[in-house]
Parts: sequence; C-alpha cells; structure tokens
Amino acid sequence: MAKGFVSLVGAGPGDPELWTVRALRRVQSADLVLYDALVDAKALRQLTAAQCFCVGKRAGRASVQQNTIERLMIRAARAGKRVVRLKGGDPFVFGRGAEEAMALTEAGIAYELVPGVTTAVAAAELAGIPVTHRGVATGFLVVGGHTGEALQRVISGVRPESVTLVVMMGLSARAHIASTLMSSGWAASLPTAIVCGASTPDEWVWTGTLGAVGAAATPDGVPGVLVIGEVVDVREALIASVRPEVMYGGG
Amino acid sequence: MAKGFVSLVGAGPGDPELWTVRALRRVQSADLVLYDALVDAKALRQLTAAQCFCVGKRAGRASVQQNTIERLMIRAARAGKRVVRLKGGDPFVFGRGAEEAMALTEAGIAYELVPGVTTAVAAAELAGIPVTHRGVATGFLVVGGHTGEALQRVISGVRPESVTLVVMMGLSARAHIASTLMSSGWAASLPTAIVCGASTPDEWVWTGTLGAVGAAATPDGVPGVLVIGEVVDVREALIASVRPEVMYGGG
Repeated sequence: MAKGFVSLVGAGPGDPELWTVRALRRVQSADLVLYDALVDAKALRQLTAAQCFCVGKRAGRASVQQNTIERLMIRAARAGKRVVRLKGGDPFVFGRGAEEAMALTEAGIAYELVPGVTTAVAAAELAGIPVTHRGVATGFLVVGGHTGEALQRVISGVRPESVTLVVMMGLSARAHIASTLMSSGWAASLPTAIVCGASTPDEWVWTGTLGAVGAAATPDGVPGVLVIGEVVDVREALIASVRPEVMYGGG
Repeated sequence: MAKGFVSLVGAGPGDPELWTVRALRRVQSADLVLYDALVDAKALRQLTAAQCFCVGKRAGRASVQQNTIERLMIRAARAGKRVVRLKGGDPFVFGRGAEEAMALTEAGIAYELVPGVTTAVAAAELAGIPVTHRGVATGFLVVGGHTGEALQRVISGVRPESVTLVVMMGLSARAHIASTLMSSGWAASLPTAIVCGASTPDEWVWTGTLGAVGAAATPDGVPGVLVIGEVVDVREALIASVRPEVMYGGG
C-alpha cells in the first residue's frame, strides 16, 4: 500500500492565481482536499479530480471541529492517500497550522508545509498600501482581532504608532479595537484602512482615520483586515496608474 | 505600438515552486525581467525567453542603483515592453516596492502588484516554527535588521517578549540586536533561531537562545532571518515527521 502523506498548504488571500506553484501541483495530484471557507471552491474543483470537502465555516453552518479535521487527515493518510489541507493565507499565520502539524507528528504521519501568500501583507498591498516604507514604517505588527484579551495585551505592549499595525479577523471588533488603541495613546487622526475580500471579486477598500473606523459601514459576510498607520496615506500616491482590474481581484 | 506595462512581483523566499501562479505567468510572457540577487537565476532563465538582468548585489559587485532600476523599467515600458520586476519575498516587505511603484506612477506607467510569499513568515515556517501559535504567540512583529537607529526605535517601543520578533536582514548585526533586546528586558534564555537560505539548497537552521545568538557561527554569503520568541520551541514538536527533503528546499 502506498504511504499516505499530508501537505499543509497556504492558499493565499483568495485569488487562485496567488496560490504558489507547489500548492497548485499538490492540489492537482491529491486524493483528498480539505479546504477552508476562504478558498475559492469552484476554482479548486476545476483544478483537481480529488475529493474536496469544505471544513470551514459556511453561511448558516458551523465549521467542522478542529479535532475532526485532524482525524480526517490522519485516517486518509493512513489509508495511503495524498491529503492536501488547503488553508486561507499562510498556514502559520493564525491558521492553526502548527496545531495540525503537531497532531500529524503525534500520529506519526509524514507531512510537509507549503507557505502561502499571507493576507496580512497582501490585503494591504493589493489596496496600494505598503506595510513597510522607507521613512514611514520600518516594521509591522500582525495581530488577530478575534483574540480579545490576548489582543489587548499585545496592543498595550506596543508604543503608539511605532509600527504599522495589521489586525486580521478584526472587522467585527473594529470599534472596540480602535477605542482600545486610542485610549492607549494612538491618535484618532491616524490613517486607517479596511480591506475586505482582498484579491477576490468582492474586494472592497475603505480609508479614513482610526477615530472613524469604528463607525464605517462594511460589506456583509466578507472577511476583512484593518491596516493602521501612516503607510495608509501612501495609497494615494500609488493607485493613480494601477490598472483597477489587475489591482482589484482580476488580472 | 503596444502599451508597456510593469509587474512588480514577489518571488518568495527562493525556491521557484514558491512563486505564485501569477508570478510564473508574468515571467513567461515578459519581454524584460529585472531580478534581485535572491532570485534563482538559472530557474528563471529556463522559464522565459525574456531578457533577464540581475539588478541586485552579487559577489564582488555592487547592486544597481535604485534610480537606475526605476529608469530601466520606465524606459522599457515606454518602448511597449512587458516588464517584470522580480523581487525576493514580497515587494512591500522591505523590498522598496512602494518606491518603485511611486516612480512608475509619477512617470505615468501602468503597473500591477503581485504579492509573494514573504520570507518573514516562510523562513520560520520552513524551519518548523510558527510565527503565531495558540497560547504561545498571538502576534508577530517584523523589523529590518539593517536599519540601525530605526530598528532600535521599534525595539524600544515593544514590551519584551510580548510578540514573536522576526528580524529580516539581521544576520550581520545579530550580536548588536541581541544585546539591544537584552538591555531592553528580553531574557537571555529566550528561544531564538537563525534561518538562512530558506527554501533553497543552502537552507541552514540554528536554534538556541537570545544570549547565544550573537556568537553563533553562520554560513558565509547566505542571507538570514532571526526569529525570537517562545514559538521557536514549537519546532521540536514539529520536525519529527516532516520529510527533510521537502522541508529543506526540495520537494
């Protein structure tokens, strides 16, 4: 019997053209693909004859439990299958990738890691915002907006405005995040952006200030990233000659 | 005459299989490719019939001046050429990508941004280190180790050990960076890794402590990333069943 194998693969921000070449190859030769909700399911099924299961959250349905995902991967690998676990962004940026890798290690299953384009950088970039820029930002901090207390701890440990702040999964808590930052000394006038659905047909960008981001209306059901810092203003100088169809999801 | 166009493209950490599908397509249909020293030149030339020029630093030769690169791109685009500017990692993570985008905007040249796999995340990942991990690190801070004073300012603005710290281009200044961190309150016992040449045949990993990183011997001429934080210890639990040929540059 062939030996099973698992590839933990980052699928990037959404557009399948932003998959890596290795991601594409692994999907094409897979027997089983377990994919997250953020992955383009239609594109995926056109690219592979593998069995494909969505294990992420979908409208009206809860996501599959983490330990169920791990059990599915392990069982399929033990049956000799080539399994691809396809995750939005990069597997090791808030992707629970290391937890899945640990579960595979404990079960004695061989696996590999295939890094992906992280949405933390690409969402800003596709909106014309560089997370680093000479003379403006020499570092960037990426945090998860869904982590509550942990987020607060990270924010309180950073001097206001010393780096570009990227908050992933921070859309629903944006008012709370903004007020936490302002009460920690971040200026209400600080340039701030929301980027939703980066690289997908639903891509949507808002720019304004930290003081206004809490009240900004955002599209429903599209995940988003907050970008906070002076680099947001670089966008004005960049978007003039970018082809919108390339910059916003097409190309 | 056809209208010229420039693609600012991230090539990822090194292995051409970690290019995005869009990067591959743009290179294949390019007339001119201006690439950085970190890009695999041999693989590049096998993939395209375009003229390919290295504009990065190479052994014994200085890199091409930034404004020369910009002038080359603009002149070729004005002559109707499809130009690819291929940069290591992601164009907007210490890549001067925004400066080049600004120059193109000012010259009225149409361009696009193609995000890449950033070495900031992938170098750690390919060494089995997750920059975020539940219960260990809920955020990560990326800084450039080449920026001297700017680095010092960023470091002094972050509470010790509150996030995973990734220092890019930090190899030659590692002793200074470590002592700066320790005198700011980061523990000498903090787990620390050096990852050189991630995803290339030269990949090399060292793990130890912040107190020891300054004295660690590293390979010559291979760029490296420092990863500082408790997440470095996750590696021990992960590497057991990863196929080394996949994890270290092959596959």
